[in-house]
Amino acid sequence: MAALQHERNARDRILDAARDLFAANGFHQSAMAELAAAAHVSVGQIYRLFKGKEDIIEAIVNSDTREREATILSLQNRLEAGEISIERTFELLLLEVMDNPHEALSFDILAEGFRNARVAGTIADMCNGLRKSLGDFACVANPGLSGEALKSAEEMILACLFGLGHRSLSAPTISAERTAKCAAFMIVAALRAMD
Amino acid sequence: MAALQHERNARDRILDAARDLFAANGFHQSAMAELAAAAHVSVGQIYRLFKGKEDIIEAIVNSDTREREATILSLQNRLEAGEISIERTFELLLLEVMDNPHEALSFDILAEGFRNARVAGTIADMCNGLRKSLGDFACVANPGLSGEALKSAEEMILACLFGLGHRSLSAPTISAERTAKCAAFMIVAALRAMD
Repeated sequence: MAALQHERNARDRILDAARDLFAANGFHQSAMAELAAAAHVSVGQIYRLFKGKEDIIEAIVNSDTREREATILSLQNRLEAGEISIERTFELLLLEVMDNPHEALSFDILAEGFRNARVAGTIADMCNGLRKSLGDFACVANPGLSGEALKSAEEMILACLFGLGHRSLSAPTISAERTAKCAAFMIVAALRAMD
Repeated sequence: MAALQHERNARDRILDAARDLFAANGFHQSAMAELAAAAHVSVGQIYRLFKGKEDIIEAIVNSDTREREATILSLQNRLEAGEISIERTFELLLLEVMDNPHEALSFDILAEGFRNARVAGTIADMCNGLRKSLGDFACVANPGLSGEALKSAEEMILACLFGLGHRSLSAPTISAERTAKCAAFMIVAALRAMD
């Protein structure tokens, strides 16, 4: 048990160090030896836990996906319990995606997705899970939505989430709070206007 | 004049080759010698026209910006002439950003933006120009928009454009045409619902 716990700690430490290192220097410009030093493990230990850098990227995306799924589940529960409105649900979700300390790393991972089918598959899976939840929220805003209209709305909201979650370089002048509130209002108004 | 024309051709050839090469292999993984071979110029000629790879990236972003500005100006003219509706204007703009053959390169450039202040500045300038045009379009949909509400709407539409223009890896099942039509309808409905 202690050995298993030790291994899990090493794994988490490697992932945390990889996020910081890849974000700062880029995925391809980061060497395993640097990662080992930053995570206080040996290079051999990294290779015992991960097949290589691509495996680490996949683990990072999967860990982000699990975190996001937990956020969405909690929002769904609060929405169903009547604690929060659908506008507030979208607002909180947008605030969550806008609180993205590893945007540089996201772009490196996305660029890698074009050169590596496995990374691309992991990203597509994550988006498909997100689409499903966004569709559920869209149907709360407008229960009449279905078929292609619902699917198109999911694409639009997914794009909005992605854009707002990667907006730093656009040098926005409006705060995350104000932007999330307005975007949530716009999304719900748009969904309600659809046939 | 002939020499100037020759230089311009070389410059364009280098930029075209750089787009393909950087998109395929990544910005940092591409060597100047490879670029020279792909563009059929000497390495020396590249360095006479550009200070380095960053300079080439800046030229690519600036050239994309000029192309986008021309598209927007043409849409503005058609909108003002009453040839197209505001929904159709957004739809055509979205179709334009979704026709992005160099998405992988965009992500490399964006990642570089986090490590290089000059690249970041070029990206921010491009976004600021885009915000201004999006704000003009938003005011056609809802002439009552102003101040923070208008600015927030600009952020939301900019995010939507960015997300839809970089959606390939999300493995969408809805066509670009259908998505652009629906997203344009949603944007205009949302703008009209704002105070």
